Amino acid sequence: MFRYKVTLAYDGTLFSGFQRQPHKRTVEGVLFSKINLMAKNPKPAIIVYGSGRTDAGVHALGQVFHFDFPFDLDERSMYKALNSILPLDMEVLKVEKVSEKFHARYDVSGKRYLYRLDLGEFKDPFKRNYTGHWKYPFDLKKVQTALDDLIGEHDFTSFVASGSEAKSNIRTIYQAKAWVDKAKNELLIEFYGNGFLYNQVRIMVGVAIEIGSGTRPVHDVLRLFKIKDRTQARRTMAASGLYLKHVYYEGDDPKHPTKLPKRQR
Amino acid sequence: MFRYKVTLAYDGTLFSGFQRQPHKRTVEGVLFSKINLMAKNPKPAIIVYGSGRTDAGVHALGQVFHFDFPFDLDERSMYKALNSILPLDMEVLKVEKVSEKFHARYDVSGKRYLYRLDLGEFKDPFKRNYTGHWKYPFDLKKVQTALDDLIGEHDFTSFVASGSEAKSNIRTIYQAKAWVDKAKNELLIEFYGNGFLYNQVRIMVGVAIEIGSGTRPVHDVLRLFKIKDRTQARRTMAASGLYLKHVYYEGDDPKHPTKLPKRQR
Repeated sequence: MFRYKVTLAYDGTLFSGFQRQPHKRTVEGVLFSKINLMAKNPKPAIIVYGSGRTDAGVHALGQVFHFDFPFDLDERSMYKALNSILPLDMEVLKVEKVSEKFHARYDVSGKRYLYRLDLGEFKDPFKRNYTGHWKYPFDLKKVQTALDDLIGEHDFTSFVASGSEAKSNIRTIYQAKAWVDKAKNELLIEFYGNGFLYNQVRIMVGVAIEIGSGTRPVHDVLRLFKIKDRTQARRTMAASGLYLKHVYYEGDDPKHPTKLPKRQR
Repeated sequence: MFRYKVTLAYDGTLFSGFQRQPHKRTVEGVLFSKINLMAKNPKPAIIVYGSGRTDAGVHALGQVFHFDFPFDLDERSMYKALNSILPLDMEVLKVEKVSEKFHARYDVSGKRYLYRLDLGEFKDPFKRNYTGHWKYPFDLKKVQTALDDLIGEHDFTSFVASGSEAKSNIRTIYQAKAWVDKAKNELLIEFYGNGFLYNQVRIMVGVAIEIGSGTRPVHDVLRLFKIKDRTQARRTMAASGLYLKHVYYEGDDPKHPTKLPKRQR
């Protein structure tokens, strides 16, 4: 068997999220059926291991998965084969042959997410599936203050959706920054951390933009860390604005080389 | 009755073109039903007059239509009312109250179209509905030479799809230019003329890119003008790359103020 690490972009609009589910079109489900088809449907079937899930409607600019293939294709051939067989809302960006020690999920050391908020009075028809929407005035400095408060190791219990199966809600955010793209009329917010809980990014963006718009106190993040109450950060921003931008593996980033301790996953 | 001129953007992906048709979701059909709903379904019904049709999958950055409304709303109120009632793949950009002499179709003096060609080896999943695709090498100068040959008043019989109902195939192209957006990895081609025939832009883009890629002689446009044969320009580029960018009305552009002569429409 030969192990392949694949970097994948997808438009999440028409997928019911990443994880395979019966009778639903999911990213993992499509990858599973197409890769097994390429390998002539072996028994047992080839399993696809993603770096983690994304929700329905969430996009990926650089999701990563691995699988073991029975035939020895070079990287370029596998790249072309996958892009030829996969549907048009997916694109393989990179294929690497890796050792059997590499695991797309267990070896993750960090993830980078981007959130795009369209700022028009009404939604731009070309962006309706690719951005969230915020039509109220806000102070970019206050948004950044909220993000600065989120940086570091914290218990993110107030920022996780019910339904999370994580053992611990402690995560570390390395970077969090906000900027405005005037030409696109968008607020962009990017997070880099060692791992994110269920809906955490969408909830953090909701809190940050509410702080920026003045409907929450400037340092409300610090209060939310203390009270550990899921019901206080009510706004979960739309899935359509969220992009999994990059998955880091052990050693990829010398500044943040190690993965989340096992007890926290 | 009060006449409104409306500038409209739409994502053409989920529309069966502009023109109203039974049992199909069309731009005109949606406008017709929503505007009549706003006016409490008067009899006779309010008619929507577009500047012209766009095909299934073709987008608009600045389509124009007019209609007569029984109630006297100011421009800002009509703008908000329309954007609140129309679906998310449409956005009203501008509302103007105009005299009853204005006609969105009969007074057109010119149209500007944009074509976007994605140049990646495989289609970008985020652009699949918003660009055409060209993965072969080409010479931008040759593309521009082809466009230069298209400029002026010509008989475009070789560049019209069968099914056109135009009385004459003579049209004038004022401007035609091609450029590459390296950041987006796209070839962009823009046309401005006094009117365009059925599928004319998509066929012209096909001929221009074939000339650019060397599969047609550099001045093949001149031969196509002469032979007046619809079967020679075979490639009609995908609807997904085409945008109606701007509609000009008599007087809007001092350089090209007049409309297409009636005998040519």
